[in-house]
Amino acid sequence: MAQAAQDTTPTLTDEPLIAALRVLLGERLSTARAVREHHGKDASYHAMEMPDAVAFAETTEEVSAIVKLCAQYKRPVIAFGTGTSLEGQVQATQGGVCIDLSGMRAILEVNEADLDCRVQAGVTRKTLNTHLRDTGLFFPIDPGADASLGGMAATSASGTNAVRYGTMRENVMGLTVVLADGRVIRTGGRARKSSAGYDLTRLFVGSEGTLGVITEVQLRLYGIPEAITAAVCSFDTLAGAVDTVILTIQSGIPVARIELLDELQVKAINDYAKLDYPVKPTLFFEFHGTEAGAREQAELVGEIAKDYGGTNFNWATHQEDRSKLWQARHDAYFANLALKPGSQGWATDVCVPISRLAECILETRKDIDETGVLAPIVGHVGDGNFHLTFLIDPDDPEEMARAEGVNERMVMRALAMGGTCTGEHGVGTGKMRFLQAEHGEALAVMRQLKLALDPDNIMNPGKILTI
Amino acid sequence: MAQAAQDTTPTLTDEPLIAALRVLLGERLSTARAVREHHGKDASYHAMEMPDAVAFAETTEEVSAIVKLCAQYKRPVIAFGTGTSLEGQVQATQGGVCIDLSGMRAILEVNEADLDCRVQAGVTRKTLNTHLRDTGLFFPIDPGADASLGGMAATSASGTNAVRYGTMRENVMGLTVVLADGRVIRTGGRARKSSAGYDLTRLFVGSEGTLGVITEVQLRLYGIPEAITAAVCSFDTLAGAVDTVILTIQSGIPVARIELLDELQVKAINDYAKLDYPVKPTLFFEFHGTEAGAREQAELVGEIAKDYGGTNFNWATHQEDRSKLWQARHDAYFANLALKPGSQGWATDVCVPISRLAECILETRKDIDETGVLAPIVGHVGDGNFHLTFLIDPDDPEEMARAEGVNERMVMRALAMGGTCTGEHGVGTGKMRFLQAEHGEALAVMRQLKLALDPDNIMNPGKILTI
Repeated sequence: MAQAAQDTTPTLTDEPLIAALRVLLGERLSTARAVREHHGKDASYHAMEMPDAVAFAETTEEVSAIVKLCAQYKRPVIAFGTGTSLEGQVQATQGGVCIDLSGMRAILEVNEADLDCRVQAGVTRKTLNTHLRDTGLFFPIDPGADASLGGMAATSASGTNAVRYGTMRENVMGLTVVLADGRVIRTGGRARKSSAGYDLTRLFVGSEGTLGVITEVQLRLYGIPEAITAAVCSFDTLAGAVDTVILTIQSGIPVARIELLDELQVKAINDYAKLDYPVKPTLFFEFHGTEAGAREQAELVGEIAKDYGGTNFNWATHQEDRSKLWQARHDAYFANLALKPGSQGWATDVCVPISRLAECILETRKDIDETGVLAPIVGHVGDGNFHLTFLIDPDDPEEMARAEGVNERMVMRALAMGGTCTGEHGVGTGKMRFLQAEHGEALAVMRQLKLALDPDNIMNPGKILTI
Repeated sequence: MAQAAQDTTPTLTDEPLIAALRVLLGERLSTARAVREHHGKDASYHAMEMPDAVAFAETTEEVSAIVKLCAQYKRPVIAFGTGTSLEGQVQATQGGVCIDLSGMRAILEVNEADLDCRVQAGVTRKTLNTHLRDTGLFFPIDPGADASLGGMAATSASGTNAVRYGTMRENVMGLTVVLADGRVIRTGGRARKSSAGYDLTRLFVGSEGTLGVITEVQLRLYGIPEAITAAVCSFDTLAGAVDTVILTIQSGIPVARIELLDELQVKAINDYAKLDYPVKPTLFFEFHGTEAGAREQAELVGEIAKDYGGTNFNWATHQEDRSKLWQARHDAYFANLALKPGSQGWATDVCVPISRLAECILETRKDIDETGVLAPIVGHVGDGNFHLTFLIDPDDPEEMARAEGVNERMVMRALAMGGTCTGEHGVGTGKMRFLQAEHGEALAVMRQLKLALDPDNIMNPGKILTI
């Protein structure tokens, strides 16, 4: 009983704020510990840090009212979609109010002729694609998780088919954003291009809730290709696989996906999904186009792969075969966990110019093996982006330290090669310490912009940069 | 003699600044009236407003030193590339120092394997493409003029083939920027994607020198397609032409260019270039791909066009035929001037969702005709972007007022349709008065960002927004 009372009592300093929020939201404000804990952790290894309260908002106006109250009390505001971020983006590092946007799930408009739509922030990508099914259109960005589109915009998500369709940065046309003082703005619009002033849309995309709360997203859509085919190819060497990717991209072949799996990753999915791919560096491809176009792409890539020692170029035109292949890729995370039962996965990513990719991956693989941690590698290699999944016990500080060492050396290696400390997972709390090395004086400019829009630092404080 | 002395004497208030700049730059600082006049006007109808001095910079460090001096004296800084902007972006509305970057013409690196390059801001797009000739790569953005790449980044230029390759926004990977206090930052990088903090690159792209001076640009490059073909098709109705475009885009056919010319524009180029295109709404297409792919695209588009009343679908595979066709398109401006000898051209553009394009063009055409001005229409219609060229006498206030009325009504029409007041010409001084209507409260946010980065409003003041 005492425990239950304690569980639902917010910290004393927030009491007037929480009382005001309760007037606004009634039952849609929760201070229950289980709810707060659920909202204080994402899908990563980062520790749970719970907010003082969780506000379940249903409209932009409501988000504005919540933020105004938080601004009045100078307390943190953390936006929450599906909690599938990977660098601690939803941790309430200083308590405050988490705004859960999952109730904002209206698909506001679909403009079929213009290939665009507008959704509330809580709509997930799969929900949108289900809704679009009869239109012949789809939204291609696929970060793996069935994330909310607001969250995907906030973290500049991308995933397997960014090589063809771009990232959220290229596919968000406009936003509705609630600013730190509760003002509501609309950025961008429905025109395919505009040079009418500063590109506020791109400023908020990837700002991880530190500049405002995204409540609506205008998105580009694409016609579902007439034909979709897939292929798998094994290589004796990682260099052969990466050179195949480089020449494919250079040749302008519009592949929709090129995923690299290292030997350990292939072994993991073979074991997990009872498959029998050769345990070698392997590329998974997907081709979108007309029947003839998709076939031509596959044939061209098959020839390039052969030149670089690719074997068993296996071309899957049937939906069933393709599904099996991509299911295996999507299962990679769980397959990895099964490599070391009881472990937790810590996913990290970097992105480098593609000419440095083989070198970066090989050096990282060597470092992993020498350091004695377990970490399969997969990559969205068409973009030069690759991921490690450390299989670790977060309660083993010595193992964590070894993984942190590998991660840090990988980031510094990527930066030295002209790359970035994160291609798609974002900064959150996990990559903050690398931004000075990556951006130099430009980080000070980011800080100036943050202070201009959020002088009291209430919007997701402690993420991306410190004030 | 008195006249000559007056010509080179700067305004009194700037004397100490100019003396300091002369110490820095020697002969590369000019206060000659002819030089100042040349730098006070772009390629548009906007009036010449000359700076007090023109500084010919050769390095980023020199730009930084110039800006520091201007900051010290709180005097305007206006960046100048080739002077081919179209909305008065280079006008020195409050005097100050124009920094001419045309001497910064080093191509700093070309990374063939990574399809990227880094150039100084003064390198023009044609110079870059000439330099790339032997690499099999090219930079696709083509705004018509042989503009500097720094200027193209600053104005978020695009042009005929943005429908396939995007605008500068999608093709600038990173920038070197001199800020209002003289600090030098590098934004972005060579990774194909990054979610490492705020997207400063996109903030500076399209900021028209109001947030900083761009001195270096990192750009995406593309493999020259194996095959390039072109086609021309006439339509009885504008709606038929636009519906052809909509279905082409919806079908995901990756056309490289789709240009619409209205009847008056076709007449103008026929007269000018002694051509005999049917005087009807006409589409010019270009297709990039493999031999088979480009042919397939042309065939698919040909079928769509036929369904919408297109006739004489004329497919040009030979370089010579293609060059003739695109030369005609590029000559449109001069062809227009010849429609009304002695006139000056005033180019303006808007961009709307493609489903509204026919309606927007037809209403605008009707307004032009009813208002009694002469203005052919061309459009980068794959993007929903179209241009008017008013053929006017700037010294005839009554004619100017009529043209301004048409322009204003066209902009408000575009905004009402979910469009933007400028798709690619930018804001400069010409479109400023429409930004409040387009952006609402978001304009106040642009102003906050401007003040955060340029509190004394010295960077190209009087452009995009007032402080």
